[in-house]
Amino acid sequence: MKNKPQRTVFFVSESTGITAETLGHSLLSQFPDIEFSYRHRPFVDNLEKAQALLDEIAAVASHDGEQPLVFATMPIAEINARLQKCGRQGGCLYYEIFENYLKKLSKDLNTEPSHESGISHGWGNQKSYDTRIDALNYTITHDDAMVMKNLDEADVIIVGLSRSGKTPTSLYLALKYGIKAANYPITEDDFERHDLPNVLIENRDKLVATTISAQRLHQIREKRRPDSHYSALSTCQSEIKKAQALYARYNLTPLDVTTQSVEELATLIVKKMHLTPRQYASSNMRTNNTDPEAE
Amino acid sequence: MKNKPQRTVFFVSESTGITAETLGHSLLSQFPDIEFSYRHRPFVDNLEKAQALLDEIAAVASHDGEQPLVFATMPIAEINARLQKCGRQGGCLYYEIFENYLKKLSKDLNTEPSHESGISHGWGNQKSYDTRIDALNYTITHDDAMVMKNLDEADVIIVGLSRSGKTPTSLYLALKYGIKAANYPITEDDFERHDLPNVLIENRDKLVATTISAQRLHQIREKRRPDSHYSALSTCQSEIKKAQALYARYNLTPLDVTTQSVEELATLIVKKMHLTPRQYASSNMRTNNTDPEAE
Repeated sequence: MKNKPQRTVFFVSESTGITAETLGHSLLSQFPDIEFSYRHRPFVDNLEKAQALLDEIAAVASHDGEQPLVFATMPIAEINARLQKCGRQGGCLYYEIFENYLKKLSKDLNTEPSHESGISHGWGNQKSYDTRIDALNYTITHDDAMVMKNLDEADVIIVGLSRSGKTPTSLYLALKYGIKAANYPITEDDFERHDLPNVLIENRDKLVATTISAQRLHQIREKRRPDSHYSALSTCQSEIKKAQALYARYNLTPLDVTTQSVEELATLIVKKMHLTPRQYASSNMRTNNTDPEAE
Repeated sequence: MKNKPQRTVFFVSESTGITAETLGHSLLSQFPDIEFSYRHRPFVDNLEKAQALLDEIAAVASHDGEQPLVFATMPIAEINARLQKCGRQGGCLYYEIFENYLKKLSKDLNTEPSHESGISHGWGNQKSYDTRIDALNYTITHDDAMVMKNLDEADVIIVGLSRSGKTPTSLYLALKYGIKAANYPITEDDFERHDLPNVLIENRDKLVATTISAQRLHQIREKRRPDSHYSALSTCQSEIKKAQALYARYNLTPLDVTTQSVEELATLIVKKMHLTPRQYASSNMRTNNTDPEAE
């Protein structure tokens, strides 16, 4: 490996820091020639913690011989001011994400922001929380064809070969979107019958078929059971071919998962199947878990 | 319920739209007096799809009698220009998230951005992907005390009462951070013995104890088994009291999960336990799944 230039990156927030982290990663992925190392500093919500952070930033700057990057969502004005000052004085490169947009939004919407902190990534209200937990329970129960009943309750049924990423994608759909995602691994039995189980065919409109490159599947399976028949490249090639024949029989166009991340795959499935992310059913993301009686 | 003003919000991207969605929600949570409804429009990656989107925006504007809000990450210059024009002409309120920061970052880092799209939210490289899948498999196997061995492999063991949010938090830790999170539900058996299982005590430094308000636990359990002994407020009160006595015995300070979202709780646990999010072990978020041999 060539030696890349190194840079330390801080994600800072008075709350979880999920917004700073998401935008920061998204932006920094555009600079593949720099090696970034990351420090998460959530819950910086008083001046003492802010000072400790500033000390850490100074120590890193001195160690790296380069200014650290600081991505922050910081609604606490006094802490934001201190970080801004650090940026102005060259102690770091400071990117505060929130304030500019908030000012513009406030003007556009002709409404003052609440400046309440920590309400961005709550699981919405009580109802939305319950929906996601229900979806998660359903998805766990219906993982890997463990339970083949109640499939009419599923929002989507992911079909594919063993180790092609069905489980993480199903769980992500449930956790993030409140979608009930069952999944079914195609096995030798299905190939022998050259048929899918009836319960799947009855739910034909919910099926998402997946395929993957033989090389990639081989590589994943090798980690699980090295040098086995199961993981052999020829086995993978043969299974993929048989799965595709089975899909063709039911006119299922498979999604190729080879180069997709779980996040991308989940988004593709939501779009392809015209699913409605359930956690947005409620009006906004304010949590009212503190007052369960309000529902 | 009072009648709130309504606004339609679009999250637009040439890729998954996760960044636009995350920042958009975060910002809009600051305007609780407006009722937002959301439309996700990912994978807008050619002019035909862009035109369909612009038509939809115009239809919504006409229907709502208000300008829709459009949050976008749009590295495709020609599509970005069309959306900007829509904003300038008053057809929507357009917030492009990427370009301003990218320009500033590029200047600060003295490097040109790659302008490759769709690489923001990949699961990093092959190694990072495998780490997260391993963590997920571990977490699923060790959910709800299903398997009580190999706990020395766990990064963290979440302990708490039935239905207090251990499972979604564990799965979130695995999926997002590649952390192996086991969890253990405290039950009547533990109370009777007034002790935790040996295997937990041997892993005392990995335990995260949780507590919850009786009212909230009662409410969650009522959804599962209405009007049961299990869900009765008095049962919840008694179990919480006994759990706290058990924690005190081992000098465990419980995290109160009552008002925390799963995202917040996971972030708190990472911080409290000084865990290292594993998916950031790799240098950056570029996916190279296309070339498994490169590892």
